[in-house]
Amino acid sequence: MSSPLRLGIAGLGTVGIGVVKIVQKRAELLAARSGRDITITAVSARDKMKNRDADLSAYRWETDPMAIAQADDVDVYVELVGGDSGIAKDSIEAALRSGKDVVTANKALLAKHGQELAQLAESLGRVIRFEAAVAGGIPVIKTMTESLAGNEIQRVMGVMNGTCNYILTRMESAGLPYETVFEEARQLGYLEADPTLDVGGIDAGHKLAILSSIAFGTQVDFDNVEIEGIERVSIDDINRAADMGYRIKLLGVAQMTGRGLEQRMSPCLVPADSPLGQLNGGTNMVIVEGDSVGQIVLRGAGAGEGPTASAVMSDIVEVARGLRMPVFGQPAVGLTAAQPARTAVPAAYYMRLELQDKPGALAKVATVLGDAGISIDRMRQYGHTNKASVPVLVVTHKTTPDAIDHAITVLPETGVLVSDPVELRIEDV
Amino acid sequence: MSSPLRLGIAGLGTVGIGVVKIVQKRAELLAARSGRDITITAVSARDKMKNRDADLSAYRWETDPMAIAQADDVDVYVELVGGDSGIAKDSIEAALRSGKDVVTANKALLAKHGQELAQLAESLGRVIRFEAAVAGGIPVIKTMTESLAGNEIQRVMGVMNGTCNYILTRMESAGLPYETVFEEARQLGYLEADPTLDVGGIDAGHKLAILSSIAFGTQVDFDNVEIEGIERVSIDDINRAADMGYRIKLLGVAQMTGRGLEQRMSPCLVPADSPLGQLNGGTNMVIVEGDSVGQIVLRGAGAGEGPTASAVMSDIVEVARGLRMPVFGQPAVGLTAAQPARTAVPAAYYMRLELQDKPGALAKVATVLGDAGISIDRMRQYGHTNKASVPVLVVTHKTTPDAIDHAITVLPETGVLVSDPVELRIEDV
Repeated sequence: MSSPLRLGIAGLGTVGIGVVKIVQKRAELLAARSGRDITITAVSARDKMKNRDADLSAYRWETDPMAIAQADDVDVYVELVGGDSGIAKDSIEAALRSGKDVVTANKALLAKHGQELAQLAESLGRVIRFEAAVAGGIPVIKTMTESLAGNEIQRVMGVMNGTCNYILTRMESAGLPYETVFEEARQLGYLEADPTLDVGGIDAGHKLAILSSIAFGTQVDFDNVEIEGIERVSIDDINRAADMGYRIKLLGVAQMTGRGLEQRMSPCLVPADSPLGQLNGGTNMVIVEGDSVGQIVLRGAGAGEGPTASAVMSDIVEVARGLRMPVFGQPAVGLTAAQPARTAVPAAYYMRLELQDKPGALAKVATVLGDAGISIDRMRQYGHTNKASVPVLVVTHKTTPDAIDHAITVLPETGVLVSDPVELRIEDV
Repeated sequence: MSSPLRLGIAGLGTVGIGVVKIVQKRAELLAARSGRDITITAVSARDKMKNRDADLSAYRWETDPMAIAQADDVDVYVELVGGDSGIAKDSIEAALRSGKDVVTANKALLAKHGQELAQLAESLGRVIRFEAAVAGGIPVIKTMTESLAGNEIQRVMGVMNGTCNYILTRMESAGLPYETVFEEARQLGYLEADPTLDVGGIDAGHKLAILSSIAFGTQVDFDNVEIEGIERVSIDDINRAADMGYRIKLLGVAQMTGRGLEQRMSPCLVPADSPLGQLNGGTNMVIVEGDSVGQIVLRGAGAGEGPTASAVMSDIVEVARGLRMPVFGQPAVGLTAAQPARTAVPAAYYMRLELQDKPGALAKVATVLGDAGISIDRMRQYGHTNKASVPVLVVTHKTTPDAIDHAITVLPETGVLVSDPVELRIEDV
């Protein structure tokens, strides 16, 4: 048996403590599977005095992650500090330069500086592994870099922020408005310190940018992900979409087109009875489509101590086994800059219009849509109430985002709308 | 860049030709991802003259797989001949002994001789990879050996024979009896030459035995998989199960219990709205439960040229990248023989009874179940027809297989049954 693999862990939040617990509890199993013992040499966190759910007394305590990154008795630097720059980035670079491999769960850092870090690591003959950065315990990074290596990837998509999915499914099941459920989620501790990272779609966008890079052999390009969060999803739309057989999900889609790479993270309708439509609560799902394999669906817990620590441990075991790969599945120097493209792939769209309750209103709407080249699949006008307006739902046939944008601009000119029209893409899943 | 990785492919059926096509069509991609070219040196099949959907003129033709297995200009022996012994086994052993790594899709061989082959390979410092052997394009072997390495696996289960799933879903959607759909499947070419391998649950049983070994660190033990095929699943049961909110699937389940390792492959009821219940046609699904990661669900095409060839290629790329692992995820010499246990984990059960249409019949049945310690969750007696009998459905609370077996034995003694009672396990998914 080889010498032990010695870990230095920076960051002792939920995930860090989860890793410590697995190393302690599953030592024998890890040794059998890795061919060597896995041990912890040193740990670091901001507050030494904080009460933590693990016995850390056997490990050297460092106040500065840099001390771990540069320690002579550490083989793998496990970065769980977080943040898209600063000490997380500095310490990873220092660890690579001092001959260590790196395991991290830091999606924000990789989305912003992944290309630069991968080039540094590969130039030094080191690896950076990051299974935990995308979709928690779901092995999506490994599946894409290794299991689908014989495929040209056509599309990758998924629900990758459990908090948003919790909020959307809870709104539907409890019939509550966004603001109420958002507040619930905050009190349950589901939200990041800066909640716009979650509900603004930024966290999920980071993940999508990472997956795009692996899928298409391009440099991570987070800046060109079209991002829209879930803040404008109303309980009305959730209910109306359900009436039409759909659910609303914060869905990421990346696909290479003749015009370039489309990357979008936005609230979309998906069929209620599709695997994505059936995804409740904090569960994540990633769907990958390859030219040979067809469609692969991966589903599991997207966050939480156990699942995320499980992903970190899988990376650690890989390093222990001596399995070494380029960071994004092929050498970083060979990754090309993606040509970004705004979404133009046609799709069906859902529209909700609040119309004045008077004859001819619907005809005016239908005319605008027809003039914009939009063909209607289904239309539903809700019963007259004592209000002066009626809701009208439209599901279009496949059309372009441009046509929809144009219609949205022109519709108010009909003079029959009592509020701004709502449109949501119905992704073809 | 390293020297090319040279393949020798024995067996040019659907999968073999699929591999040839990917190697030809995706040469550039494979080189980028592997860090070296992947080439084919020699191929072999029974009939050289057969018309095949690929240009093989650049490869040396061998009539004997042994010649490929022992060729000096082959690095990886790709065994796609099939069969649980004979030339498949002999040629793999010869390839290992002549210093080659092996990639195979042969589940029958691994289920029967996996332990012996793994020990031989590891003693010689060679690898055997077999992602394609279980669930086609779904990366379940890699997920279990690598991505879940930090987990104690609690249960693994799945629908792993696309033909059976096709037959069952087609029976339900078309309302056709087993025999009719079986014949359809045969004419569509979905069945093995010996169809009992499919519909008898043997092929799926092979796959489950392989997954068990990886999950629990035990030697492959196909002989102790309790196997029941789908031949006795009637359209009546499919319809009645649907009435109660279930679908019938040929489901494999392996779990380690205090008494030993339970492995069973049998028709089971699963909730119609669960991921397993929603699985239609030839799609496969594997569900793995680990102590840290929770439940991971993997879904994709379980057979066919593209998906299976995709899995074979992922193994080839792994070898090209120099990623080397023990065959079953940990050294074969350390795998212990499993203590086999017959199914005793409690579950709810579905029973369908055809009762004489006379007062007191139902009471007698309820008494037998009560005496056997079986508690009833739901019971449904169908409307009286002009027949002298009425169907009665029972869904029990969780009970043991022993209690069910006992009740099934005693029920005929009531004198109110007009045919043999049917029972099916409702697996807790």
